[in-house]
Amino acid sequence: MRHLLDTRMLTREDAIRILDVAEDMQGTQEREVKKLPTLRGRTVVNLFFEDSTRTRISFEAAAKRLSADVINFSAKGSSVSKGESLQDTAQTLQAMGADAVVIRHGASGAPRTLATSGWISAGVVNAGDGTHEHPTQALLDAFTMRKRRHGAGSRGKDLAGYRVAIVGDILHSRVARSNVWLLATLGAEVTLVAPPTLLPQDVTQWPVSVRYDLDDAIAEQPDALMMLRIQAERMNAAYFPSEREYSRRWGLDPERFARLTGDTIVMHPGPMNRGLEISAAAADSPRATVLEQVRAGVSVRMAVLYLLLAGERRSEETK
Amino acid sequence: MRHLLDTRMLTREDAIRILDVAEDMQGTQEREVKKLPTLRGRTVVNLFFEDSTRTRISFEAAAKRLSADVINFSAKGSSVSKGESLQDTAQTLQAMGADAVVIRHGASGAPRTLATSGWISAGVVNAGDGTHEHPTQALLDAFTMRKRRHGAGSRGKDLAGYRVAIVGDILHSRVARSNVWLLATLGAEVTLVAPPTLLPQDVTQWPVSVRYDLDDAIAEQPDALMMLRIQAERMNAAYFPSEREYSRRWGLDPERFARLTGDTIVMHPGPMNRGLEISAAAADSPRATVLEQVRAGVSVRMAVLYLLLAGERRSEETK
Amino acid sequence: MRHLLDTRMLTREDAIRILDVAEDMQGTQEREVKKLPTLRGRTVVNLFFEDSTRTRISFEAAAKRLSADVINFSAKGSSVSKGESLQDTAQTLQAMGADAVVIRHGASGAPRTLATSGWISAGVVNAGDGTHEHPTQALLDAFTMRKRRHGAGSRGKDLAGYRVAIVGDILHSRVARSNVWLLATLGAEVTLVAPPTLLPQDVTQWPVSVRYDLDDAIAEQPDALMMLRIQAERMNAAYFPSEREYSRRWGLDPERFARLTGDTIVMHPGPMNRGLEISAAAADSPRATVLEQVRAGVSVRMAVLYLLLAGERRSEETK
Repeated sequence: MRHLLDTRMLTREDAIRILDVAEDMQGTQEREVKKLPTLRGRTVVNLFFEDSTRTRISFEAAAKRLSADVINFSAKGSSVSKGESLQDTAQTLQAMGADAVVIRHGASGAPRTLATSGWISAGVVNAGDGTHEHPTQALLDAFTMRKRRHGAGSRGKDLAGYRVAIVGDILHSRVARSNVWLLATLGAEVTLVAPPTLLPQDVTQWPVSVRYDLDDAIAEQPDALMMLRIQAERMNAAYFPSEREYSRRWGLDPERFARLTGDTIVMHPGPMNRGLEISAAAADSPRATVLEQVRAGVSVRMAVLYLLLAGERRSEETK
Repeated sequence: MRHLLDTRMLTREDAIRILDVAEDMQGTQEREVKKLPTLRGRTVVNLFFEDSTRTRISFEAAAKRLSADVINFSAKGSSVSKGESLQDTAQTLQAMGADAVVIRHGASGAPRTLATSGWISAGVVNAGDGTHEHPTQALLDAFTMRKRRHGAGSRGKDLAGYRVAIVGDILHSRVARSNVWLLATLGAEVTLVAPPTLLPQDVTQWPVSVRYDLDDAIAEQPDALMMLRIQAERMNAAYFPSEREYSRRWGLDPERFARLTGDTIVMHPGPMNRGLEISAAAADSPRATVLEQVRAGVSVRMAVLYLLLAGERRSEETK
Repeated sequence: MRHLLDTRMLTREDAIRILDVAEDMQGTQEREVKKLPTLRGRTVVNLFFEDSTRTRISFEAAAKRLSADVINFSAKGSSVSKGESLQDTAQTLQAMGADAVVIRHGASGAPRTLATSGWISAGVVNAGDGTHEHPTQALLDAFTMRKRRHGAGSRGKDLAGYRVAIVGDILHSRVARSNVWLLATLGAEVTLVAPPTLLPQDVTQWPVSVRYDLDDAIAEQPDALMMLRIQAERMNAAYFPSEREYSRRWGLDPERFARLTGDTIVMHPGPMNRGLEISAAAADSPRATVLEQVRAGVSVRMAVLYLLLAGERRSEETK
């Protein structure tokens, strides 16, 4: 694996390999051997054109646990804001010795441009681009589902027949997109639940079912109910229901939450808007996997950095 | 020790233990063995809801000298500013692998909430909360006084009979509060010196004497004269004397400074407003311990992180 | 070497020594042994009073490759912005254990003040001060020229007879000043090319020739053509030609670039304003050394930190 740009192009084999390596990494954590020398002398640059403390420190923690050096490059107040091109920024980072560039960018496709333009040879990891994809989020979600489904025997397994409902603003969500492609590849059955104005026009071509009513989706008792974060900045747009309306119809309130049975888990990428898309009752219940997801995030990012930097790349470079 | 939340609840035994370990840490520095492998693989998160470069880098330097990984989390521009709760932030940090959380927060009591709520098992260090406490500042002050008092033979000693005058805005000072409790525990005699409007209402219940006149306090020739930093943002408040009046009556000007005799030391938590609460003559004299305090700060923070992370906690976790 | 404050006072011997050590450091990079234990336990503080992500992360990468701990201190939002003096900031950093202070400051001469005041014993590296100097930039430029001139046999060599044209806003450029002094010391012949209003008044006393016309300078076919970055903030000043005028007369457009022959290289300190002082045709051609310069930057900064911290200083301190 040279780059991780999306889940849409990820093969089943590669996805399961990442999840399996992430299992090893998490096992390592549990044995309290938190630091591995694997990436010693390697430099990972976090190139963030949008603020995201949470994702940035998850990658930072992952890289440091593998003994890599981490350099945080926030594009705000940097030469980038002076109009430097993405090409020049990227080439500069590589010339300084970056072995991997973790990029968060407002423009869909920026990570792919970086990886395929021939500008740099460093590994590129997409940490969220526009409304396109956020592949490590989907991988950590799949990791969490697989663990809940198969327990200690997860290794090598996919999510065949696992039923996932994703609820919220699908239209603008790169998390939803990355989950849809990855879950389909892993054999899960995905239902999207949203008001019509928050669904993309081409949703009919996605490998999903659609529900407009959260109560219908809950009645089907999915294995996982994934509540998307609602972005405050979208809320007064014409296509968006009022906050009150949204919360009433698509929020996981205590009453709806109480209707969940069996082993259904409640997922959320965080940070949560308690009382809006998810109630405290749901967020703090044993069904909630929010913290397992965060923990899986470090493991998955360790796995991705490991596969990008410790594997084939090394031998390619020393040829 | 599981957390360091305040000095008010700190036992004499624990306080002396921290100071003694800090002596070892400082000794290490002097022998030029600046890096200890003690906390290798441990992660310390600096969770700062208020800016404080000085305190943050002191903790950062302390953690790095013990070979811990450090992740700086400034709440500005993060999901916290998007309305995430302290609980969710803290649980997220722990799920990412934080072994200790160093927290600076505008609300008095936030570190205690974090430590006692059951949200997280990581060690919590209060790096300043509202007008409540700033315990590592008091510990580094006590370290400095003890060293000046007992020299090389400090180990195991307290500050019995040591006379300390604390001058300035006591009302809003968490540094003053932390010093009052710790110094009382260590047997020192504390005098607070301030205009009546800058003293808390319940000061009569504190283990201190009060003076309204700095000249009276100086006439008593204390062992240590601690000048508090005056915060510019308070200065036009009704309860605050004018800057000119303050400086004239409660500032350590060259004339007052010249009246100090014996071994009296002049302390300041920094950064100093030269010419306001302290004159250059005082700040740059051999009586001034400002830089010894800064240096002690790293040693004390190394000691606290060591006691929190390398001691009982480890065995508790692996049980 | 105790400090690196400027190139004006740098002897030929010291300059060549830095370049030779930088060769070793770059050789190390090529052998994929990216991490040296040389500065383990040493602390390098990046004290930046002006934003400069690019220079800051170059120093950060250099220090980390030598296994030093790095602490970034941005003066914005810190106690410095609360009015703390440079003296107090510097003494505080040293008391926290800083072995070297890399300083970027808006005031010409601030690094020298820091180094010669007796305030601190830490090594001081000037990372750009006002319109005075930016010595590591000139060293990385010289490194790049020497490598292009002498190839693998660079070690010990100077730039005798090498002809360099520096084009742009000489008046405000610390990069130009540092290059002029260093190149003269190394035996190169420097021509400055600028409109009269962008030349300093005392340029007649500098060891340079002056041209007002870029086409004349190109006709002379220099060995290196160094295009300075134009600062957007200067552009509407009275002494500055309009952007259009500047670009037309002093920009390296495709037509001028096509007139270069032989081995002439095109240098730029970055970040580039493509289409203003340099065209894409020039920036992306094999003549352009922009990325070699960035790469040399890390090597040169490793060399400087190594010479400051791993050499005499250590023995001085342990005396």
